[in-house]
Amino acid sequence: MNFVETKLGDLVATFGGRLASFSGDNSASSDVLLSGIQSLEKAGQNNLGFLANPKFRDQLLTSSAGVVLVRESQFIELQQYLKANRADAGRLLAWLVSDPYLYYAKIQQWWVSRSEFKPEPGVHPSAVVDPTADVAPTASIAANCVIGAHAKVGEGSRIEAGVVLGNHVEIGAFSRIYPNVTVYDESLIGDHCIIHSGVVIGADGFGFANEKGAWVKIPQVGQVIIGDQVEIGANTTIDRGALDDTLIGFGVKLDNQIQIAHNVTVGDHSAMAGCVGVAGSTSIGARCTVGGAAMIFGHLNIADGTHVSGASVVMSSIKEPGAYTGIFPLQQHKDWEKTAVTLKQLVKLRTELRELKKQQS
Amino acid sequence: MNFVETKLGDLVATFGGRLASFSGDNSASSDVLLSGIQSLEKAGQNNLGFLANPKFRDQLLTSSAGVVLVRESQFIELQQYLKANRADAGRLLAWLVSDPYLYYAKIQQWWVSRSEFKPEPGVHPSAVVDPTADVAPTASIAANCVIGAHAKVGEGSRIEAGVVLGNHVEIGAFSRIYPNVTVYDESLIGDHCIIHSGVVIGADGFGFANEKGAWVKIPQVGQVIIGDQVEIGANTTIDRGALDDTLIGFGVKLDNQIQIAHNVTVGDHSAMAGCVGVAGSTSIGARCTVGGAAMIFGHLNIADGTHVSGASVVMSSIKEPGAYTGIFPLQQHKDWEKTAVTLKQLVKLRTELRELKKQQS
Amino acid sequence: MNFVETKLGDLVATFGGRLASFSGDNSASSDVLLSGIQSLEKAGQNNLGFLANPKFRDQLLTSSAGVVLVRESQFIELQQYLKANRADAGRLLAWLVSDPYLYYAKIQQWWVSRSEFKPEPGVHPSAVVDPTADVAPTASIAANCVIGAHAKVGEGSRIEAGVVLGNHVEIGAFSRIYPNVTVYDESLIGDHCIIHSGVVIGADGFGFANEKGAWVKIPQVGQVIIGDQVEIGANTTIDRGALDDTLIGFGVKLDNQIQIAHNVTVGDHSAMAGCVGVAGSTSIGARCTVGGAAMIFGHLNIADGTHVSGASVVMSSIKEPGAYTGIFPLQQHKDWEKTAVTLKQLVKLRTELRELKKQQS
Repeated sequence: MNFVETKLGDLVATFGGRLASFSGDNSASSDVLLSGIQSLEKAGQNNLGFLANPKFRDQLLTSSAGVVLVRESQFIELQQYLKANRADAGRLLAWLVSDPYLYYAKIQQWWVSRSEFKPEPGVHPSAVVDPTADVAPTASIAANCVIGAHAKVGEGSRIEAGVVLGNHVEIGAFSRIYPNVTVYDESLIGDHCIIHSGVVIGADGFGFANEKGAWVKIPQVGQVIIGDQVEIGANTTIDRGALDDTLIGFGVKLDNQIQIAHNVTVGDHSAMAGCVGVAGSTSIGARCTVGGAAMIFGHLNIADGTHVSGASVVMSSIKEPGAYTGIFPLQQHKDWEKTAVTLKQLVKLRTELRELKKQQS
Repeated sequence: MNFVETKLGDLVATFGGRLASFSGDNSASSDVLLSGIQSLEKAGQNNLGFLANPKFRDQLLTSSAGVVLVRESQFIELQQYLKANRADAGRLLAWLVSDPYLYYAKIQQWWVSRSEFKPEPGVHPSAVVDPTADVAPTASIAANCVIGAHAKVGEGSRIEAGVVLGNHVEIGAFSRIYPNVTVYDESLIGDHCIIHSGVVIGADGFGFANEKGAWVKIPQVGQVIIGDQVEIGANTTIDRGALDDTLIGFGVKLDNQIQIAHNVTVGDHSAMAGCVGVAGSTSIGARCTVGGAAMIFGHLNIADGTHVSGASVVMSSIKEPGAYTGIFPLQQHKDWEKTAVTLKQLVKLRTELRELKKQQS
Repeated sequence: MNFVETKLGDLVATFGGRLASFSGDNSASSDVLLSGIQSLEKAGQNNLGFLANPKFRDQLLTSSAGVVLVRESQFIELQQYLKANRADAGRLLAWLVSDPYLYYAKIQQWWVSRSEFKPEPGVHPSAVVDPTADVAPTASIAANCVIGAHAKVGEGSRIEAGVVLGNHVEIGAFSRIYPNVTVYDESLIGDHCIIHSGVVIGADGFGFANEKGAWVKIPQVGQVIIGDQVEIGANTTIDRGALDDTLIGFGVKLDNQIQIAHNVTVGDHSAMAGCVGVAGSTSIGARCTVGGAAMIFGHLNIADGTHVSGASVVMSSIKEPGAYTGIFPLQQHKDWEKTAVTLKQLVKLRTELRELKKQQS
């Protein structure tokens, strides 16, 4: 992406904070022209860098960035460090803010939205839109999309190539649906959502009765309801409920290849990394985080503010917020073989230990 | 979905069982008009509810359902319970059946099939169908599908938007392929199958020879053959065989995001929950269940009637049916850290214990 | 697939090695007509078989194959074995080569490329190709593809139905993109690559700053850059970098449903089996193998030549090449329950053991 050239002073005027010089003089100039954010390592004179974590402050010694976002409360210390260790500290301007990483996120959003390609509103002639669908005039429907009966696409939303929206699907305003997403009938997606390619929303939950060894399908007639400001990563799947609905709360962020089963609830502002699986009817609280490839069993309640480590398995409800982990430690294969064999004998070892203790006492 | 209004008496006439009154009088009326099934919690007077498990019988005390499916053998007990604990027990009708959950499944199927939108048979003008393909006149091919040479689509089957069927693909009768599914050349799918969006059937198995450190592809020329009444969840992948075929048996049910590698066989009526992986050439018996995110290594044989718990790893063949599990228990993170460190010392601990025993004896 | 009939002598002339008779006479004839490779079990008189591993040499006793690839250095021993154990050993010809499995791979490639359907070069009328895109005249763009602005498709490449290539995407020469793949803007794919259906390349990495409990998106403006001769399995996802790029090296082979997070580097000739997850900013060396469903945490360095077993979790960097494993052993469920409970007491058991030792000494 080619970022539009922007004057440093205009950025500071928009986002706040203040400029200062690492060299201690008054040379901080807001006239510098910037053409994008870069890491301190890769940044050039026309880039904005950021120091999110002061433990990487040595990167300031060699960075060619023109300006760097630093935490205001750390500036004096950083300034002393640079003056002591970098001869041309004056080449690097400091932009003092409350939270450099957050400013990076917000400035990057602003810059990308001014720099990226935006499709014209309207429906591409190759798209197949049911005449009963209601597409806002400011929305765009790209090539080869298929939009079902009574579907709605809100103001400013962007439906990219090859997306299929079923009947009665509703997409709110200013949402972006990337190519080749499928949304089943009756699923509802909020405003300002981002749905990445290959996502499937509203497919049938996995529900069967058993009749003499054969599985009898239970039709899944609940909906998927997704709140505002939700982002869903590539190839993630969210199943519709059996009778009730599957609910994804406000501001939830799901990474790629996550599986959310039927009737799950995910609370506001929770986030899950890639490859997580959540089984049916589990309710995950607000502001939880789930690490990559963790697996959460069905019919559980996970308290608000719970953090599950990657690759961990949650088999029962979690009532107390906190950090939870269960991972088999990695070893050299030959050592693991012995550990695994011994682990199977663990109950026996405990018995032996207790007998020893008894004999000794 | 708006369910077509149906007289209770007509449902009973179709599915069997008999009506009874919880209050013990003879007021059970088959004239009640019903407009769908609901959970006991959400059901209203015009809904059918069901009590699948008697441990939730307290839901009968407050449910507003008009009618509830209950197990005939449990009715007397439930009736006494309601008469003792609910003043207006007479408001709730009982429909006595052999298996309420199975009846729920079957009645829901019947009701949905009468209530849902069905596309007209025929090929949408935007679909690209090879002239050598053989599409039954009662089948429907939706917008933007691409159907390859010599492909066959059987009677009453429904191919939804954006599906790509390769050359020589065969879909049986009354199967439903949801949007954006891809079926590679020569794959065969049976009758009454349901394939959800994003599924990929018949992609190359993962096979390579190694030549001085570089991988040399082994072309995968086997097929995928899928029996009748199979359901496959969203974004699941089933690879074609290297030389022989990958086989999915009659009535198999696969949830979302499952990976079935080349030359795997899955026996009739087996079911797997989401995110399971089955590595190459493994043969899974009939009537097995595999919990979510379980992983089964390659070249194994799993006996008929085996049940693998979610998140468990199967590294060797299972000869005896039964329930098998291997999950690292979840702990608070700081406790897990100690457990993990100690686990690496487990072999050493065993040695120490044995030495202690020797000294003591 | 119907393999074109080929004279054995022509194959030997093309690939090298030499023919010999298991019966020891001079009857080895290069005139045999072959119509494909099969396993020794399924092969008929007109098939080429192969013995990759001498421990399966008993399959030579009953195979009906016309010819079998065997390792030259093992031939004398195999010949004696057959002469002693198979009366009609003379019916089976031996083709002596340095590495039968590698020859199988190469011959199969050759044969498939001569036997398979190949589309005509050119753009299908239903495809939507931006006028600024640059498609080589020898490339083929199938039905319902959407090709973005300034995209490039190289010589002889084959873009199959429903593929969406974003703006500025580049596909090298002789690559094959299977149906319904999505490639986001600016992603680069090399020559001779194979990308299977449902793959998503270049979706946003999972990056957010946190502002008072709410997640603020960090736009992902790095690229995905994929080297030559890479194969990527169905429904695998590779995210674009946040600022820097995600890099997939030369000859890398990724199986199905793998998740590669932003800013990951995968070194040349590394291979990963299905369902692996690699978290952000991890660097995997060259010639590594990662077993199915393994999970590698973020910000790690994995040494060249490391082998991670399936279903194992890598939580810290690996500096020494070798084989690493961490899998909870599978047990009958009731035994596992006891093991899991005891495992939570492991730290306490260690303490008790140490106290016992102290008392005893």
